Amino acid sequence: MIHNSVIDTMMQRKSIRKYTTEQPSDEVIETIVRAGQQAPFAYQLGSLVLSRDQKENPFSAPLLFTVCMDVHRFELIMEKRGWKVEANDLSVLILGIQDATLMAENMVLAAESLGLGSCFLGAWPYYAKELKTQYKLPDHVFPVVGLTMGYPAEDPPVRPRYPLEYHLFENEYPVLDDVAVVKAMQVMDEGYLAQDYYRRANYIIPLQGKREETFTFENYSWTEHISRKLALWQKSPRRLLAGFKACGFKLPGMRVGKSD
Amino acid sequence: MIHNSVIDTMMQRKSIRKYTTEQPSDEVIETIVRAGQQAPFAYQLGSLVLSRDQKENPFSAPLLFTVCMDVHRFELIMEKRGWKVEANDLSVLILGIQDATLMAENMVLAAESLGLGSCFLGAWPYYAKELKTQYKLPDHVFPVVGLTMGYPAEDPPVRPRYPLEYHLFENEYPVLDDVAVVKAMQVMDEGYLAQDYYRRANYIIPLQGKREETFTFENYSWTEHISRKLALWQKSPRRLLAGFKACGFKLPGMRVGKSD
Repeated sequence: MIHNSVIDTMMQRKSIRKYTTEQPSDEVIETIVRAGQQAPFAYQLGSLVLSRDQKENPFSAPLLFTVCMDVHRFELIMEKRGWKVEANDLSVLILGIQDATLMAENMVLAAESLGLGSCFLGAWPYYAKELKTQYKLPDHVFPVVGLTMGYPAEDPPVRPRYPLEYHLFENEYPVLDDVAVVKAMQVMDEGYLAQDYYRRANYIIPLQGKREETFTFENYSWTEHISRKLALWQKSPRRLLAGFKACGFKLPGMRVGKSD
Repeated sequence: MIHNSVIDTMMQRKSIRKYTTEQPSDEVIETIVRAGQQAPFAYQLGSLVLSRDQKENPFSAPLLFTVCMDVHRFELIMEKRGWKVEANDLSVLILGIQDATLMAENMVLAAESLGLGSCFLGAWPYYAKELKTQYKLPDHVFPVVGLTMGYPAEDPPVRPRYPLEYHLFENEYPVLDDVAVVKAMQVMDEGYLAQDYYRRANYIIPLQGKREETFTFENYSWTEHISRKLALWQKSPRRLLAGFKACGFKLPGMRVGKSD
């Protein structure tokens, strides 16, 4: 592995959920945002709404960015050129989420390089209606993800990742056998257990139905946690669809009742 | 604006479509991929298929990564834990595209820092069926984007971006008036015209129907180009939906005929 300041910034990055009360300067914010803008894009569909209200922001973060997929801003331009959007919203969504996310990752790394920490808030799309109201988002602007930032008041360890051979494949996707799966699980689970991650967070996702809890903080780790998320949460797309609808996006076959 | 090596790497990045024939070493590739893995994630849903076949790769690039949203890999883990995915595929898509994209942007920047250039291939989702066959992608793996890399054989200028005030909003999304829209258009269009971008690419998106062409390389620029993409391309989600279906994803209300 080769090292330089850019790569080391990435390798040392971890989510920060505790911040000092220090407000980053306007110059710091502008630098982070400009670096974000310079990310590659398909249609420059990412935009930002910033809140500096520490009292209201998650983790009392000095900065909260709502990273948006923003078609509205370009529609204003198209209007001036005598065009209107005819592309289907699923295509726009696929490209727009990428534009917004490429930008957000640049912001995360620019922040790191200036001594700030950050944390993504993946639940943002489920609060699309509320965020639209709060921030007066025009139609065709969708909150893809939240991003808190500030100077860190904690220093957690870097979190583990899958082994390279469970992640990078050449020429064709291989059959991942038991040995590979078990090894990937070990790396992730032992890594998080060694950091006491879930005990410190004091959180085990509760089971539903008849399944009996057999886990404690001694053995509850990443693969069980993420399994429960994918098995127990968000079974229905209803709330997400309602959010898209509220923001003026029409996904294919979208049939959402008035009560949503 | 504050400068350091991380921020300057972002600010100087541009897409590279011409490469030398030099094959990056395994160590370079591994470093780029590991830096990608360390990006923040929701569920670690990004994986990679690499092709080093310069003869076949777009732009004859030494490296072509197919950046995937990969649920399969985690399903194997869930099986071992006695769980199965119940989360709806739209939720998985929203998170999975973000995981894959955060990773890809780290790779782009790690590559830059090692002297390599890169270019995203946004059309990849439209070739999902073909890519699935070519790379033997298992079900529940979807090609989000292609990413070519190699040592640059061209040195284009950095491309313009919207003015900051058309991009960063505080507390609420403002009404963007004519002055703001026209200024944003000017910055983008004059910026691309000054670089002779479309003349060098020798490409104007052809009009359809009765609308008469009034543009030449003297005035055809970014806002007209992107307008035409969004007005004339991908009107139907049919092909994209067929790709998702072929890859085993079921989006809400997805109704795709057998002939797709």
